[in-house]
Amino acid sequence: MEKKRILVVGLGLIGGSLAMALQGFEDYEVVGAVRSQSTCDKARARHAADRLTFDPAAELPGADVVVLCQDPAGIIGFLSDNRERFKPGALVLDVCGVKTSIMAAAECLPEGVDFIGCHPMAGKEVSGIDNAEGTLFRNTHFIITPGPRATAEHLGLLRRMAGYCRFGDVIETTPERHDEMIAYTSQLMHVIAVSVCDNDELFSCKGFEGGSFRDCTRVAALDAAMWTQLFTFNAPALAKVVGTLENRMRQYREAIEAGDQDALRAMLAQASDRKKQINLERARGDDVRPGF
Amino acid sequence: MEKKRILVVGLGLIGGSLAMALQGFEDYEVVGAVRSQSTCDKARARHAADRLTFDPAAELPGADVVVLCQDPAGIIGFLSDNRERFKPGALVLDVCGVKTSIMAAAECLPEGVDFIGCHPMAGKEVSGIDNAEGTLFRNTHFIITPGPRATAEHLGLLRRMAGYCRFGDVIETTPERHDEMIAYTSQLMHVIAVSVCDNDELFSCKGFEGGSFRDCTRVAALDAAMWTQLFTFNAPALAKVVGTLENRMRQYREAIEAGDQDALRAMLAQASDRKKQINLERARGDDVRPGF
Repeated sequence: MEKKRILVVGLGLIGGSLAMALQGFEDYEVVGAVRSQSTCDKARARHAADRLTFDPAAELPGADVVVLCQDPAGIIGFLSDNRERFKPGALVLDVCGVKTSIMAAAECLPEGVDFIGCHPMAGKEVSGIDNAEGTLFRNTHFIITPGPRATAEHLGLLRRMAGYCRFGDVIETTPERHDEMIAYTSQLMHVIAVSVCDNDELFSCKGFEGGSFRDCTRVAALDAAMWTQLFTFNAPALAKVVGTLENRMRQYREAIEAGDQDALRAMLAQASDRKKQINLERARGDDVRPGF
Repeated sequence: MEKKRILVVGLGLIGGSLAMALQGFEDYEVVGAVRSQSTCDKARARHAADRLTFDPAAELPGADVVVLCQDPAGIIGFLSDNRERFKPGALVLDVCGVKTSIMAAAECLPEGVDFIGCHPMAGKEVSGIDNAEGTLFRNTHFIITPGPRATAEHLGLLRRMAGYCRFGDVIETTPERHDEMIAYTSQLMHVIAVSVCDNDELFSCKGFEGGSFRDCTRVAALDAAMWTQLFTFNAPALAKVVGTLENRMRQYREAIEAGDQDALRAMLAQASDRKKQINLERARGDDVRPGF
């Protein structure tokens, strides 16, 4: 019997790491689709997949599982361009950081092709196949947003794949809830990091940086084109949490300017109590490590 | 000959760690001043100092070096209350996170008593003698703001103490410059962390947190009373950097709301280039680790 096939489209940091992590999964062959000769050479040197191709469209009719690892616009374009080529009964996934727009784009797929939006909460400050690792997902969260047509068989297959990649847990939610949460927990952190770096003092503060400064600005070295897409595809939810943060910072600034120590102490006590409570909850809870 | 004496006033996280780190320094006895029986018991059990006292004022006439490790208001009150008790020729230090107000308060000391403001860039999310460690300062920055009367002898002594505590380097600057820099690199990070925690979603985002969220909010579990003082004593510089950040975040929000991808990409590219440049500079530079 011919081997079943997982096609991973795009071997960047996440796609490359997934292709590595999935090798040997059940009776599947892992095929990696690349666009550049440079990525192809590196992927081959690192044994990132069982087989490599420059032509993912040609692989689609024989692919039982397709994992789309491009940026959001790339995923949406690929779905639309190739909607008739997917194998009937195939499971199609993506791994990008927004879900509502992707799930809407996947509506174009014919009946019988099952799409499940996914978001592995893993990453690094650096990108590309050079930085891919088969162990990237170990003990991190794997968020999935199945559509109404997702079959129990495909959900079971996806959970087995997640288990094989050693994700810490699988969290099932709606695309809307995912985007609302990610706006707060991830995208907002990136807006903060880049905004902090947009200060004239950045290049003169050597010797005065604490760990808090490095931690807060760590993710600022981002891929501007990709994050422009991620922010744009999640604009309403992101604008809302940025606005909430601006308001709260304004309240802190006004209390500081007014020298209102009682107000400041009350605000700080409230926030630090909230943080201490969360720390306790997390310490009691599971040990899934935070991703990116 | 009688041993010389270092008096450490206040054995919290920083004072306790300094007392531990300084034991065995040249021919000095390290005396720790505490306020509560509980801290006294813990300090004794952990051998935090060579000797402990509840009466720092009584030790002052025999103390060659006095290290003030209270909160800013505590330091200012101690200087004013005990100005006549310091030993002529003594070196007096503090270790708190604001310097202009402290240096101004130290003007009350009589001629011949030398005050040097200090700020060890080290810390933890937790406080108190329970969390003190003699190794806390290893390879971190030690910032000092000597007044115009600081003697070469005292500066030399202070640098030997810093070397003995294994600080990574000693950075000499003015109190005003210190406060301006710290507003940006440290206090602003705390305003951000508490502001992020003031969102209703904090308790519902389990499973969606990435490392960036934990890193950014890490310092929110702060001591509200102490940070109220630190913010208040540095109000103008802090209000300025909070305002700058608010403006920049508003610009990001407006670009996101307008769907202006060109503007967003340009802003993100500029900030990420700045961050990448800083990462390169730091990688080329020394290996002093960031403090708190």
